[in-house]
Amino acid sequence: MASTLEGPARDLLTQNANFAHVATLRKDGSIQGVVVWVDADEDGNVLLNSADGRAWPANVRRTGRATVTVANQDNPYEFVSVTGKLVQDTTEGADEHIDAMAKKYLGQDSYPFRQDGEKRIKLALQPERVTYNAPG
Amino acid sequence: MASTLEGPARDLLTQNANFAHVATLRKDGSIQGVVVWVDADEDGNVLLNSADGRAWPANVRRTGRATVTVANQDNPYEFVSVTGKLVQDTTEGADEHIDAMAKKYLGQDSYPFRQDGEKRIKLALQPERVTYNAPG
Repeated sequence: MASTLEGPARDLLTQNANFAHVATLRKDGSIQGVVVWVDADEDGNVLLNSADGRAWPANVRRTGRATVTVANQDNPYEFVSVTGKLVQDTTEGADEHIDAMAKKYLGQDSYPFRQDGEKRIKLALQPERVTYNAPG
Repeated sequence: MASTLEGPARDLLTQNANFAHVATLRKDGSIQGVVVWVDADEDGNVLLNSADGRAWPANVRRTGRATVTVANQDNPYEFVSVTGKLVQDTTEGADEHIDAMAKKYLGQDSYPFRQDGEKRIKLALQPERVTYNAPG
């Protein structure tokens, strides 16, 4: 088990439009799961984007952590699991970041699902535990 | 939020060869994520299959719970998240169950990845919280 996200494991988050399953801890100790867009920065941090007020980013803020699993949509036997700690939580650049992911996932220059009054937030998770399952 | 798995949410686990992201709690309180085959029974319980001795089923046994997210591989905006409690944990029928899933996922009558001495286990999770995200 590694503690850095690099090589083919990182590629899963950046090279294809693979979706992330984000698992966070609810206040009652149970696990919440959602499926969202994902990205990684040059340092191998996992980048997520959400709107302020939603449940799962609130869980990440409260616990300081999340676990993100990303499978290769063309071969789901290849996947990576990253448990990471929250190292960035900002509105700065969050709109540009969701636009960049709209390009990756939708082929559109601008995120088309914005809602009135929505404040985007960008979260960066620094990997603590990385498990990469290579394709068989 | 429902507490039963039915209709299109259940279909995600039974009608296509969609993979499940299973999130369980490690002893240290962090979340482990793995990507595995999945199925559902007639009562809407989530069915998983593993080999005795692996980490994630041990987490399920210790905590009595897991959260399973399954996205439609043809349209990942449709997904279901199920937090369920462990209601069955058995070797009985576990080999037949993994063979049935081999048919679903590989089109083969018999699970081809068996390892020497491996003891298969079949776990059933009864849904407590079900969140279904319909395709947009």
